[in-house]
Amino acid sequence: MGTHAYEGGRLNLPFVGISTFGKRPYVEDWATLDADVAIMGAPFDFGTQWRSGARFGPRAVREASTLFSFGHAGAYDHEDDATYLPASVRMVDIGDADIVHTDTERSHANIEQGVRAILQAGALPVVIGGDHSVNIPCINAFDGQGDIHILQIDAHLDFVDERHGVRHGHGNPMRRAAEKDYVTGLTQVGIRNVSSTAREGYEDARNMGSDILSVRQARALGPKGVIAHIPEGVRVYVTIDIDAFCPSIAPGTGTPSHGGFLYYDVLEMLQQLAQRHEVVGIDLVEVAPDYDPTGSTSILAAQVLLNFLGFIFHARAQT
Amino acid sequence: MGTHAYEGGRLNLPFVGISTFGKRPYVEDWATLDADVAIMGAPFDFGTQWRSGARFGPRAVREASTLFSFGHAGAYDHEDDATYLPASVRMVDIGDADIVHTDTERSHANIEQGVRAILQAGALPVVIGGDHSVNIPCINAFDGQGDIHILQIDAHLDFVDERHGVRHGHGNPMRRAAEKDYVTGLTQVGIRNVSSTAREGYEDARNMGSDILSVRQARALGPKGVIAHIPEGVRVYVTIDIDAFCPSIAPGTGTPSHGGFLYYDVLEMLQQLAQRHEVVGIDLVEVAPDYDPTGSTSILAAQVLLNFLGFIFHARAQT
Amino acid sequence: MGTHAYEGGRLNLPFVGISTFGKRPYVEDWATLDADVAIMGAPFDFGTQWRSGARFGPRAVREASTLFSFGHAGAYDHEDDATYLPASVRMVDIGDADIVHTDTERSHANIEQGVRAILQAGALPVVIGGDHSVNIPCINAFDGQGDIHILQIDAHLDFVDERHGVRHGHGNPMRRAAEKDYVTGLTQVGIRNVSSTAREGYEDARNMGSDILSVRQARALGPKGVIAHIPEGVRVYVTIDIDAFCPSIAPGTGTPSHGGFLYYDVLEMLQQLAQRHEVVGIDLVEVAPDYDPTGSTSILAAQVLLNFLGFIFHARAQT
Amino acid sequence: MGTHAYEGGRLNLPFVGISTFGKRPYVEDWATLDADVAIMGAPFDFGTQWRSGARFGPRAVREASTLFSFGHAGAYDHEDDATYLPASVRMVDIGDADIVHTDTERSHANIEQGVRAILQAGALPVVIGGDHSVNIPCINAFDGQGDIHILQIDAHLDFVDERHGVRHGHGNPMRRAAEKDYVTGLTQVGIRNVSSTAREGYEDARNMGSDILSVRQARALGPKGVIAHIPEGVRVYVTIDIDAFCPSIAPGTGTPSHGGFLYYDVLEMLQQLAQRHEVVGIDLVEVAPDYDPTGSTSILAAQVLLNFLGFIFHARAQT
Amino acid sequence: MGTHAYEGGRLNLPFVGISTFGKRPYVEDWATLDADVAIMGAPFDFGTQWRSGARFGPRAVREASTLFSFGHAGAYDHEDDATYLPASVRMVDIGDADIVHTDTERSHANIEQGVRAILQAGALPVVIGGDHSVNIPCINAFDGQGDIHILQIDAHLDFVDERHGVRHGHGNPMRRAAEKDYVTGLTQVGIRNVSSTAREGYEDARNMGSDILSVRQARALGPKGVIAHIPEGVRVYVTIDIDAFCPSIAPGTGTPSHGGFLYYDVLEMLQQLAQRHEVVGIDLVEVAPDYDPTGSTSILAAQVLLNFLGFIFHARAQT
Amino acid sequence: MGTHAYEGGRLNLPFVGISTFGKRPYVEDWATLDADVAIMGAPFDFGTQWRSGARFGPRAVREASTLFSFGHAGAYDHEDDATYLPASVRMVDIGDADIVHTDTERSHANIEQGVRAILQAGALPVVIGGDHSVNIPCINAFDGQGDIHILQIDAHLDFVDERHGVRHGHGNPMRRAAEKDYVTGLTQVGIRNVSSTAREGYEDARNMGSDILSVRQARALGPKGVIAHIPEGVRVYVTIDIDAFCPSIAPGTGTPSHGGFLYYDVLEMLQQLAQRHEVVGIDLVEVAPDYDPTGSTSILAAQVLLNFLGFIFHARAQT
Repeated sequence: MGTHAYEGGRLNLPFVGISTFGKRPYVEDWATLDADVAIMGAPFDFGTQWRSGARFGPRAVREASTLFSFGHAGAYDHEDDATYLPASVRMVDIGDADIVHTDTERSHANIEQGVRAILQAGALPVVIGGDHSVNIPCINAFDGQGDIHILQIDAHLDFVDERHGVRHGHGNPMRRAAEKDYVTGLTQVGIRNVSSTAREGYEDARNMGSDILSVRQARALGPKGVIAHIPEGVRVYVTIDIDAFCPSIAPGTGTPSHGGFLYYDVLEMLQQLAQRHEVVGIDLVEVAPDYDPTGSTSILAAQVLLNFLGFIFHARAQT
Repeated sequence: MGTHAYEGGRLNLPFVGISTFGKRPYVEDWATLDADVAIMGAPFDFGTQWRSGARFGPRAVREASTLFSFGHAGAYDHEDDATYLPASVRMVDIGDADIVHTDTERSHANIEQGVRAILQAGALPVVIGGDHSVNIPCINAFDGQGDIHILQIDAHLDFVDERHGVRHGHGNPMRRAAEKDYVTGLTQVGIRNVSSTAREGYEDARNMGSDILSVRQARALGPKGVIAHIPEGVRVYVTIDIDAFCPSIAPGTGTPSHGGFLYYDVLEMLQQLAQRHEVVGIDLVEVAPDYDPTGSTSILAAQVLLNFLGFIFHARAQT
Repeated sequence: MGTHAYEGGRLNLPFVGISTFGKRPYVEDWATLDADVAIMGAPFDFGTQWRSGARFGPRAVREASTLFSFGHAGAYDHEDDATYLPASVRMVDIGDADIVHTDTERSHANIEQGVRAILQAGALPVVIGGDHSVNIPCINAFDGQGDIHILQIDAHLDFVDERHGVRHGHGNPMRRAAEKDYVTGLTQVGIRNVSSTAREGYEDARNMGSDILSVRQARALGPKGVIAHIPEGVRVYVTIDIDAFCPSIAPGTGTPSHGGFLYYDVLEMLQQLAQRHEVVGIDLVEVAPDYDPTGSTSILAAQVLLNFLGFIFHARAQT
Repeated sequence: MGTHAYEGGRLNLPFVGISTFGKRPYVEDWATLDADVAIMGAPFDFGTQWRSGARFGPRAVREASTLFSFGHAGAYDHEDDATYLPASVRMVDIGDADIVHTDTERSHANIEQGVRAILQAGALPVVIGGDHSVNIPCINAFDGQGDIHILQIDAHLDFVDERHGVRHGHGNPMRRAAEKDYVTGLTQVGIRNVSSTAREGYEDARNMGSDILSVRQARALGPKGVIAHIPEGVRVYVTIDIDAFCPSIAPGTGTPSHGGFLYYDVLEMLQQLAQRHEVVGIDLVEVAPDYDPTGSTSILAAQVLLNFLGFIFHARAQT
Repeated sequence: MGTHAYEGGRLNLPFVGISTFGKRPYVEDWATLDADVAIMGAPFDFGTQWRSGARFGPRAVREASTLFSFGHAGAYDHEDDATYLPASVRMVDIGDADIVHTDTERSHANIEQGVRAILQAGALPVVIGGDHSVNIPCINAFDGQGDIHILQIDAHLDFVDERHGVRHGHGNPMRRAAEKDYVTGLTQVGIRNVSSTAREGYEDARNMGSDILSVRQARALGPKGVIAHIPEGVRVYVTIDIDAFCPSIAPGTGTPSHGGFLYYDVLEMLQQLAQRHEVVGIDLVEVAPDYDPTGSTSILAAQVLLNFLGFIFHARAQT
Repeated sequence: MGTHAYEGGRLNLPFVGISTFGKRPYVEDWATLDADVAIMGAPFDFGTQWRSGARFGPRAVREASTLFSFGHAGAYDHEDDATYLPASVRMVDIGDADIVHTDTERSHANIEQGVRAILQAGALPVVIGGDHSVNIPCINAFDGQGDIHILQIDAHLDFVDERHGVRHGHGNPMRRAAEKDYVTGLTQVGIRNVSSTAREGYEDARNMGSDILSVRQARALGPKGVIAHIPEGVRVYVTIDIDAFCPSIAPGTGTPSHGGFLYYDVLEMLQQLAQRHEVVGIDLVEVAPDYDPTGSTSILAAQVLLNFLGFIFHARAQT
């Protein structure tokens, strides 16, 4: 009796085949969605303030995810002695939200609609950006879904209220989230150096219930210590800006900032989180493959997402 | 009444969505194949003699093809005053043949199996390589399908018989084809300068029924004149090695050779061919995206294939 | 008495110094503008439908222009036996229009304001994009300046009226221009293959007074013949989409299309035009340096602009 | 009353506008220089022994510096709870020293002249290389300015006396500096692995008053411990070779060496230094953008310089 | 009397001259081989499961090695106060094993023949891959040479037995090695995350005498602690897959995996090993220069190899 | 009896082995030189006025030349029905002239010494640059060798006498050559657009016996017509600046200029020349591989050189 896909049909090497996320099935008709976790791309990048190109983030992360998609029945991790994402976890790729060039509001509305479709189907939504403004419609979609706490892993605070009329750019999402009554708090980790947020933004954030930790502060606390900052029992939405990571491993992004997290810093926070909290939604944003000639950034995004999903469903299976 | 897809549902910009060829439907189960034309990737590159990387050719050409895949009902060409590839041409993407690393014979067998499935379904097979050795199983699959003539558009003759035991590398396919009794002749266009084929290869080719034209000779004849070299009434299989083109527009390939064709040289030959002959199969090989930092080569491949398919089905519709 | 700048102060090699266009003076305060020609950047790219990144076009073209900016008193061309752009032509760089991320209308308004400032000062406006949608505010700025004819050199017709609410994207500018009562006609050259404009767009264009020529048609006419298509005596605004050129020399753009113009094709049209018509405004758009690893596209843009300006002021000096 | 530039005129996003350092004013006439700190480029690279290209360092660092140049009144750092480089710090960019190809001595003389102009104006000189040989004329310019101590942060000792007649290449600057009577000592940090300096060079350096620390030794000491090696009360000139950093974050340089510093290693040394010593001059050299496809190295250089300047003027403001 | 080559003839800068490894002599006729250490390239990459291109590894590592090959008599390391690889260590480059495209077995046989020639001459074999499957013929060549222990530094376990008939791909070498009776044990360090090896592979490895350590486990032990895992007195063959390193410093490889070793992690293990064990053979594999636009990976490979060889012959000289 | 090298020992694919030019023997000791043609690298680039990096030209052209170096006995060209460069043409690679950083005069002297050694041995010297200033020592080496005529194929006139003291930069070589009494004339082909040479330079050139042809003028004449401009019976030295070619095929150079030659333009001129004149020396300069991500420029240089050498020795064999 074969336990591995490759014993039957195809060897299905990473470089072979259509690039859906993790080479999982593509569900074009969102009305038929039936899965534990659904991946959607949000290839919107008009919200960037320096380098654009995050519109190609979803395609790049999908392609990179094939590296971790041998035809095995799940991924065995010898350090944890666990097989993550076995076939029993039903993961699908629902393609991309429709983006309308020149039109931020319409594009955001389409993203919100996609997340709502996933939530409607009872699946965990995982959105691949696109720039960080796509978090705004993602959080909008959680209206009526109960209270959530936001864990933001990012270099930048993204807490600008309004400037020159802009309220839905990639410098605004955390401010927009904090305004929601169903967002009960924010933990903002990795924040460092200069950004588009000025001193007032930091003061506002703290006043609106935010907990801000730099990379050095997070390292001093350790992964467990960081996660302990999140109130017990809350349901957590996680938004990962790839520029939270050090440009050494994530150069392919719009506004890189030196001094960022290394791989295990974030991996271990996510593993801790998965063990202690219900994770209700995820977005990973700002992968801009045109600045990623080695593929390192896309691979990081795929590796982090697949491991994080592994931790989440492993924890669910334990309970 | 809407005549364009974008009037209904989605704008579906080129940078949005899963990359199948031309954003056409993906058919995973080859037994259910029902289409006019079927695209298959053959991501095999162990047959290369200089730069490898053609294994990522199918993915790159698929992604590039999205540039020509706005949500229109067909592509209008004002020079020809024709709308090519209307929705009535049923085009599908059947994914890739399964490749087995280290094993040329097994990989080739899987490619042959895919082409056979397409032929079985009565669809026109279009194979995206992969290196030029993938032409060998493609031609094998035509065994029992009636006589064919081969039009090769290439920089290199690829007519080596055997060297150090190698008979199925990317220097051998035209020799292998010429050996088939159902291959009634070859027209080899674009051949120039040094290559892995020595003088004897040229003599053998001519002895085995091949007509060899260099780029300068083909230009002197003009597109009509070149196609007139193909015997009237034969059914034609077309194999396009992207290195037939000038490295100025097709640098992303394993063994570039200066002095190649420009775009209209080839486009007009293919348009002539489509008007005068039945085209029974196509492969386009040797796109190696790692040497194509601007995307120019992949875009060329997609643009040539989509136009060629447009010409073929436009001609079929006229008859 | 020295006739060359380098005899006095500095050698001023191309790689030395701040990158303004042609290393000409930077005028920050637009109210003080006093020049024959003024260059402005319009780094807006939310109007693109495939690859973005044209926001870095102005910086890249400025840097490339330094290659042609040795410390000479003008550029001697031995074929024409002319010294172009002598010091007597007062050329300045006024920097960039202010762009507001996420907000197309506000960004376009800022571009319009810049062009108006240049026109107000009696200088020839030269706008470097940015995507082709920046042509919309450029043409808007000509309201009240008398009738103009538009010469568009482009791969794409850009004549979409409205789709999903989009009227100011990079597929719309020529339609918007044709709607102006002060635009008396359009000559659209280089148009080829598929694009976002469908058959209706071509019909609309022709109905609204447009003359459409493909690359092959333009070559058959020759540069003189193409320019002869423009009605005698009209004042001409020239909009050059860099994708009018063949990807072999202009790969660094959002939506490349094979089969485009080579260098002399366009250079000679522009030289003809300068000799026969008053040129009242210029934009050159869609240079996306992230897809231009060799710098070839930016160099082309700078070389074309500097030569075109040379032709214009040389012609003015003759009269 | 607006405290931010963007409340008045322009949003001035990083990707908009002419690239001067930090988007600060460009002062072309050095005789009129009136500032607290003046940036000058020294685009000289004939002194390199492996990869050249540092001539484009100044342009690349200027462009990267725009990422940190939103239209804010200073940069707020939440870890230090400080706003660095407020408008009251008068920073200007004086462009580049004139470089004469093939002529090392003349190019160096022009660099020296620029630094002298800055010192003459009472401003802090910040020179962006160019290869490390540009440090030689920088130090020459300090003749008559009182005693200085040199803090070199670098992978290589650069202490070769003379070889094949070469005394002013990028392997010689620290030897040249040590020969000056106004250079009272050197602290050389980050030195590791093989380089052009042989054993005798190390012995000479120690004999001439140099203190040599490797990366591992510096880490063991900690930033405070390293800076404690510098004699109390000395005025310090800082020369930063970007190859002091790990190639993971600074690949864009002529002679990368693995095992280098990470971001906080250097940042914290510079912050310590600014708090304990008067900094009288800075150069940052060997950024070679052609080897920096992601921009990571240029961004690092800009981020380090802007933070270091922030620390220096913050410390000055405290006293 | 000169002790440095540059005092006599040539300066011989790194960018000058033919690229043999370390610019050491090229020995074309293997029958005449007489050296202490011999470098051979094994440019085979048909065994890869994602990105190919390791065939250009040997050329890239050779070119990078020139950076460390100034015309000095050995490389002085100030941390160790040692001059490594003095002229007395006779190092030669014997070129590449002959590779036969499409033919794994024949190519492997040629590699084995090369290693046998080196062993026959009594020199230390150092093989530069190529993909990790080239380790298979390397180990085969040790048949009859006495017992060896293998130290593998790698991200992946490479312990797949057979899949779809594949036994000699880059996922199989450690399994093939473990089957040899003269391989007395394996220490596998750096192993992490998902790979082509499933859970059974790990079980098999442990059952066949393997000791498996992840990056985090190895760091917790420290370099000394890791090397202490190797049984005392064994002769050690070292196989280094460059993907053992973090993609931050080694992006140029076929299957990068985040969370890898940094430079000193591995350097210090190798230094420990050289001091405690006889090293009888080395291979360094999976450098794929097409994914290494900055050269960082090739430089790492060259720097690690040259330092490791320095340690080995320094240790031999002590005894 | 084997007529091909591959029938005996090795297949010797292009990607295998040490990169000497054409994989021909490396002669390190110039005193022993005995050959028909000798290749020498001149990796000097301090003479450039925009982008440097030509120092890596020799290595890149050598590596590219391996593509044309299958293990055949000569290269068969079916258009000419000739086998070029059979084994009877003794071609060797003598490595590079020694370059001294910062020192133009010393580096040039070393280049001159290399060319003299080749001439002394009676071989045809072929020098691969480096920037165009390396032509100066090449021509110097012809002192005492009889009269020569120079055919320069280039975008730029390179006829600057002196500027800011520079007489030996890459803008000066043709002026320096014209000053020699043994240089009886110059034919300068491909010259176009602006360059560092001003109007006076053109006048001087014509006064000193130069014949100047632009690309368009050369095309109008045809290859035969261009070569007919060279006086009958003269011995010709050919200097090819790769920027003579269109940036579409030769982007990898310091100062690209659009509107250049395509492949056959130059190939056919060289073939004509070889048939009508004795060629006494060749240099090919300004290949800068850092701007050549696809390898297209290096491949062009190798392909042109190998074909040109083929033509020369084929013509010699006919006489």
